[in-house]
Amino acid sequence: MENNKVVLAFSGGLDTSFCVKYLSEDKGLEVHSVVVNTGGFDAEEIKRIEDRAKSLGVKSHKTIDETDNYYEKVVRFLIFGNILKNGSYPLSVSAERVSQAVAIAQYAKEVGAKAIAHGSTGAGNDQVRFDMIFQTFMPEAEIITPIRDMQLSREAEIEYLQSKGVDWDFTKSVYSINKGLWGTSVGGKETLKSNGNLPESAFPTQVTKTAAEELKLTFEKGEIKAINDKAYHKPAEAILALEKIAGPFGIGRDIHVGDTIIGIKGRVGFEAAASVLLIKSHQALEKHVLSKWQIYWKDQVSAFYGNWLHEGQFMDPVMRDLEAMLKSTQRNVSGDVFLTLFPYRYQVNGIESAHDLMSAKFGHYGEMNKSWTGDDVRGFAKIFGNQNAIYHQVNEEEI
Amino acid sequence: MENNKVVLAFSGGLDTSFCVKYLSEDKGLEVHSVVVNTGGFDAEEIKRIEDRAKSLGVKSHKTIDETDNYYEKVVRFLIFGNILKNGSYPLSVSAERVSQAVAIAQYAKEVGAKAIAHGSTGAGNDQVRFDMIFQTFMPEAEIITPIRDMQLSREAEIEYLQSKGVDWDFTKSVYSINKGLWGTSVGGKETLKSNGNLPESAFPTQVTKTAAEELKLTFEKGEIKAINDKAYHKPAEAILALEKIAGPFGIGRDIHVGDTIIGIKGRVGFEAAASVLLIKSHQALEKHVLSKWQIYWKDQVSAFYGNWLHEGQFMDPVMRDLEAMLKSTQRNVSGDVFLTLFPYRYQVNGIESAHDLMSAKFGHYGEMNKSWTGDDVRGFAKIFGNQNAIYHQVNEEEI
Amino acid sequence: MENNKVVLAFSGGLDTSFCVKYLSEDKGLEVHSVVVNTGGFDAEEIKRIEDRAKSLGVKSHKTIDETDNYYEKVVRFLIFGNILKNGSYPLSVSAERVSQAVAIAQYAKEVGAKAIAHGSTGAGNDQVRFDMIFQTFMPEAEIITPIRDMQLSREAEIEYLQSKGVDWDFTKSVYSINKGLWGTSVGGKETLKSNGNLPESAFPTQVTKTAAEELKLTFEKGEIKAINDKAYHKPAEAILALEKIAGPFGIGRDIHVGDTIIGIKGRVGFEAAASVLLIKSHQALEKHVLSKWQIYWKDQVSAFYGNWLHEGQFMDPVMRDLEAMLKSTQRNVSGDVFLTLFPYRYQVNGIESAHDLMSAKFGHYGEMNKSWTGDDVRGFAKIFGNQNAIYHQVNEEEI
Amino acid sequence: MENNKVVLAFSGGLDTSFCVKYLSEDKGLEVHSVVVNTGGFDAEEIKRIEDRAKSLGVKSHKTIDETDNYYEKVVRFLIFGNILKNGSYPLSVSAERVSQAVAIAQYAKEVGAKAIAHGSTGAGNDQVRFDMIFQTFMPEAEIITPIRDMQLSREAEIEYLQSKGVDWDFTKSVYSINKGLWGTSVGGKETLKSNGNLPESAFPTQVTKTAAEELKLTFEKGEIKAINDKAYHKPAEAILALEKIAGPFGIGRDIHVGDTIIGIKGRVGFEAAASVLLIKSHQALEKHVLSKWQIYWKDQVSAFYGNWLHEGQFMDPVMRDLEAMLKSTQRNVSGDVFLTLFPYRYQVNGIESAHDLMSAKFGHYGEMNKSWTGDDVRGFAKIFGNQNAIYHQVNEEEI
Repeated sequence: MENNKVVLAFSGGLDTSFCVKYLSEDKGLEVHSVVVNTGGFDAEEIKRIEDRAKSLGVKSHKTIDETDNYYEKVVRFLIFGNILKNGSYPLSVSAERVSQAVAIAQYAKEVGAKAIAHGSTGAGNDQVRFDMIFQTFMPEAEIITPIRDMQLSREAEIEYLQSKGVDWDFTKSVYSINKGLWGTSVGGKETLKSNGNLPESAFPTQVTKTAAEELKLTFEKGEIKAINDKAYHKPAEAILALEKIAGPFGIGRDIHVGDTIIGIKGRVGFEAAASVLLIKSHQALEKHVLSKWQIYWKDQVSAFYGNWLHEGQFMDPVMRDLEAMLKSTQRNVSGDVFLTLFPYRYQVNGIESAHDLMSAKFGHYGEMNKSWTGDDVRGFAKIFGNQNAIYHQVNEEEI
Repeated sequence: MENNKVVLAFSGGLDTSFCVKYLSEDKGLEVHSVVVNTGGFDAEEIKRIEDRAKSLGVKSHKTIDETDNYYEKVVRFLIFGNILKNGSYPLSVSAERVSQAVAIAQYAKEVGAKAIAHGSTGAGNDQVRFDMIFQTFMPEAEIITPIRDMQLSREAEIEYLQSKGVDWDFTKSVYSINKGLWGTSVGGKETLKSNGNLPESAFPTQVTKTAAEELKLTFEKGEIKAINDKAYHKPAEAILALEKIAGPFGIGRDIHVGDTIIGIKGRVGFEAAASVLLIKSHQALEKHVLSKWQIYWKDQVSAFYGNWLHEGQFMDPVMRDLEAMLKSTQRNVSGDVFLTLFPYRYQVNGIESAHDLMSAKFGHYGEMNKSWTGDDVRGFAKIFGNQNAIYHQVNEEEI
Repeated sequence: MENNKVVLAFSGGLDTSFCVKYLSEDKGLEVHSVVVNTGGFDAEEIKRIEDRAKSLGVKSHKTIDETDNYYEKVVRFLIFGNILKNGSYPLSVSAERVSQAVAIAQYAKEVGAKAIAHGSTGAGNDQVRFDMIFQTFMPEAEIITPIRDMQLSREAEIEYLQSKGVDWDFTKSVYSINKGLWGTSVGGKETLKSNGNLPESAFPTQVTKTAAEELKLTFEKGEIKAINDKAYHKPAEAILALEKIAGPFGIGRDIHVGDTIIGIKGRVGFEAAASVLLIKSHQALEKHVLSKWQIYWKDQVSAFYGNWLHEGQFMDPVMRDLEAMLKSTQRNVSGDVFLTLFPYRYQVNGIESAHDLMSAKFGHYGEMNKSWTGDDVRGFAKIFGNQNAIYHQVNEEEI
Repeated sequence: MENNKVVLAFSGGLDTSFCVKYLSEDKGLEVHSVVVNTGGFDAEEIKRIEDRAKSLGVKSHKTIDETDNYYEKVVRFLIFGNILKNGSYPLSVSAERVSQAVAIAQYAKEVGAKAIAHGSTGAGNDQVRFDMIFQTFMPEAEIITPIRDMQLSREAEIEYLQSKGVDWDFTKSVYSINKGLWGTSVGGKETLKSNGNLPESAFPTQVTKTAAEELKLTFEKGEIKAINDKAYHKPAEAILALEKIAGPFGIGRDIHVGDTIIGIKGRVGFEAAASVLLIKSHQALEKHVLSKWQIYWKDQVSAFYGNWLHEGQFMDPVMRDLEAMLKSTQRNVSGDVFLTLFPYRYQVNGIESAHDLMSAKFGHYGEMNKSWTGDDVRGFAKIFGNQNAIYHQVNEEEI
């Protein structure tokens, strides 16, 4: 008997619900739905998705909890690299999608599927991420994308589902929300234009805290270990806990403007209190414990790492090389970071670390000390500027 | 008769006042004092400095207004490059010092001095910047640094000046302030340690505005042209005007932790409302008008440009090359940026530009359009991920 | 009357000859053939291509001489950047293709064509270069690629042409040769595998010179101005002249292994005496006249520039920015370079330049002089190594 | 009793012989001489140095064999990174000096010296390397440099030694030779100027092989494992063996022009057959097994790594990070490289590797195959060039 198994990335929304019916009933395939939780879903949502899958008549439904793995394989390196795309966006969605795609591909391999299906349209980034990671893991598998291929309207999809006896409420919400461990994106009519901010009400987390709050974050080799002295075994748990503390301050909100994989510019709002605070605290600590050129090279490399991850190129072997480099830089990134949280903002107050290079015993900046003399610096400046001096004696050059 | 002219960088403070007396009376040199205004001094301060110089008996005193030149030669490129050192510090002091050093060296050349003197100690960055730029412009001139060489205490300097009949008030203020066009640095006991923030009172500009305020900034080829539709002929004037608007919000305050030229870490507070707002607005505009790789390369190059400027290497010819590149990137960076200012924070609301690549006619992100088809993207993903697919077929590699 | 004009990139070979007949007779289009000479064709070849076009019945045929423009817009920057892809290949073909595509697109615009056609297969780099540049210049034009779309065998194409009365000799040569201003590529059965070199006979230029020959190249602002003191007005002419001198030595032969745009690895032989000698001489001169960081940044930027050009992304605005930077670096790259040519190799003997930073008056390396003292260097080393010393006192780290 | 132990880096030459006498007899220090062999000395030379030390009356003499350690800690990464400074120089001397300095500092620590002495002059790179590494390892130790401090002429040193009864032949040779595992430098009157090549006779290894010779090099994870199928346990032994094979061809000779640490330009000849062949073979293999962006990033990072090593900054923690990255890239760099050696030149003929990405099963470049279709590439080009197309529709820009 021919293999007609297809693994379908299923979210319970309109597009993937359509896919279940279309693939099983019109195409005669055995549909195995799968949902990957990377920390954005709670138990209730997972249950709802599972119920929907079963009610649509999938052959099997699988929930994969990738939260810890997602942290280990991806999020960790975003922290190591202090990666905020274009200076602001923690790559909340991009990172998650890649992690989900890998888990789905591995599952498809396990169950011996001959095809993998996803419900992406032809207009976004996710289709490219899914396609590329699926073809890398299972080059022999067919990739089926009914929504992209058929270009049906929402109405047509709803009508089709109704004709199959599925009569759920698929009303589109005013703001499209994508909730994940590393941040929540918020799209709406304001983000379709180049000018205009999201209204307060668009954000899933409302600002309910108004009094300033002290915060202490403890890092060990670049990874979060404790919040306000409460230790966390799993970093993903710490991230979720930090989000609970800082989210109600409205911290980490912004609008990301950036290049999509497909060449157009896109704009999307987000709230990402935990990721922004972790990255900025981690970076503050690094300023004290890393050498000048460590900071420089981390930045150069991280800019590319973030872009390439965003573009779905997580499987490029160069990513492993850059991760090796980033990991090496973290050997002394241990210590406490002290912050104060306010509504819509925060302040990094300082750090304490056994690896702090700003140790008083090597001299305070601006005060003389016994480590070097004025003559040493005079000699330094002489030699450090020697090539410039020679250059400008050889060449008459206007400044 | 032998040339015994020395040009002295003079600020009217204790160290340089000592230098005037020491160089003229103990060393028998003809002291020509000079002060370079890069936008941080008002007329009154300039007058006070001049009076002090004369009262100390200099042979001549010169005030050089470098504000516009400083903008043209340095500040402009900090905006083009969105340069915030270590993600936060606009290089307020570093940039200014370099510009002052160049002006002093050129003045020393003009007056035919045989030596240039500065009052830097042996413990900071400025000595290196001054030394290097002086030796580059006037390799034949002696560089005289009495404070660095003699390592006198403040008390000893005061006593010496008193013995010469100078009995001014040289009480050290609790916070040392350095005011400039591009930001004001604030050092104090809190910044000598790795942990601890400056108190509100330490900042020269107090927070007096509490109601949100809309702001519109207009850029042309990367340069600020108008604020709230009021045109400015000189960018430096626009910067000063913006500081007046935004400073009383307490915007652009932070603590910079970074590497000094001499190898130790240093920490310093700053307030820099205008520079932070200009850079962040400029960057927001660029996200809309530059290509993906323009943004990438600007960031790579700017990180180095900022560091190298900070280290006083402004005269390295590579700086001219990077400036040529940065300038080229600005040809379409024209348009309006809309912000809202709040106490201690601000929000970029969007942009309007004739060069906006996020034009609706090329399709909205996430919505299908007529510029490309789903099949195009399928083909794209196939080829874009081709090498990864091949790599992972050739190599068994755990992810 | 409807516009049915198509501009066809025509070389006179089998594929594009097929295209003429197919487009005009089967598709009913008005075919305007065009050939772009970037220095690789002599008058005779140009005439032969023109005759063939006319004999196939094109509506019009156009020869565009892009040689000087090609140098100005592309080749110049390959020299400025010393660009040898993967350390060896001067990008001979990639650069040329891009230049041809731009000229063809501009021509298509001029004549008001509604479509542009090229004869590329679906297996190489050129299709991507042509497609991308055509769609950038004429987004409204259709791009027609009969060979890629129909995937005909050579035999089928020949048969079709015979049926149309075209009975030319289309025998495939053993080695496929692509001759251009900036080098000649040579493909054959040896280059289809990872191991194996081309036989002597495969190279169009045979080694006929055996006696060593002195060579002097004169550069002005990075551009070649004279060979053995004979001035050339047009750099492209100098390149052709240099090829005549050095080609018969077998200089500049190698096998390039690299990444194609479509993700697979490719291997191709080449001979490129002039480009290799120009780049290596230019680089030798630069080592004497540029500062350390100019050399560093040129290399960083050029690696990307070469790759991106190779991938057909010449129209990315970032390319103009990098060109601005590269051009700036050339302001002092003027002087003479002295070489000796031998069979299969050459030797750079040295340079003479008014901008040489290795001037004796600043001290010989390894010999003491009056520009600095041993104490200066002692101070320099103290400060230059200060951060490392602090780091290793703070952190116990095994080396 | 006070500690008056000084460890002296001793080579048996004029300068360090002077140091022994001067430190022990004039300064009353207990001199412990040490020589570090990094592969450049044979047993006879080591013996000669030891005899001289003893005859000069050192308290103890120590020979440290660092060859394998030198390979492991430094040379390996130069191969991984294909590091040829300025495109030609394998950093023969720079790398060695750093390794020696580390070994000497560790020895000084072991014996509890209070000072370390070296015989460098104030005019070269080595003084900076020694100073910086010594102060990093032993910040508390004094660094004594009699030659730099006293600036004696050779004649004065010889006279002083004669006065102490040391009457050896210290005639300066016409060419100063520095032999090491990773190459031999050759300085002479020709290299003091910007123009002029070394005569054949200046090179220690004369060209005695004239017939072409086949060579097969086997790499495993980037390291040399076998030469012509003869396995080597220790890579350093393989390097020495390769030098014996290839040196007599005169391969790997060139003149390096580059920036010294102290800001002037320097020029030096070298012969380095083994290092040049290893790097070029290794790089050829990498072109087949690494992804496009692995090659790109290795090049970016290696350029800095080589420069920073050259400048004696081996102890900067960033070097460990870059090494981690480079090491990661080598996981598939295994296979055979085939070359032909000729007098003064060589040719890489190809490679064989289980990790070769140019595998025929994924399609030959330029030939259609079943991995993708023409339509895939059409879609790819559409999207890959999308941003450029949009950019040039939005902006009128001359090319």
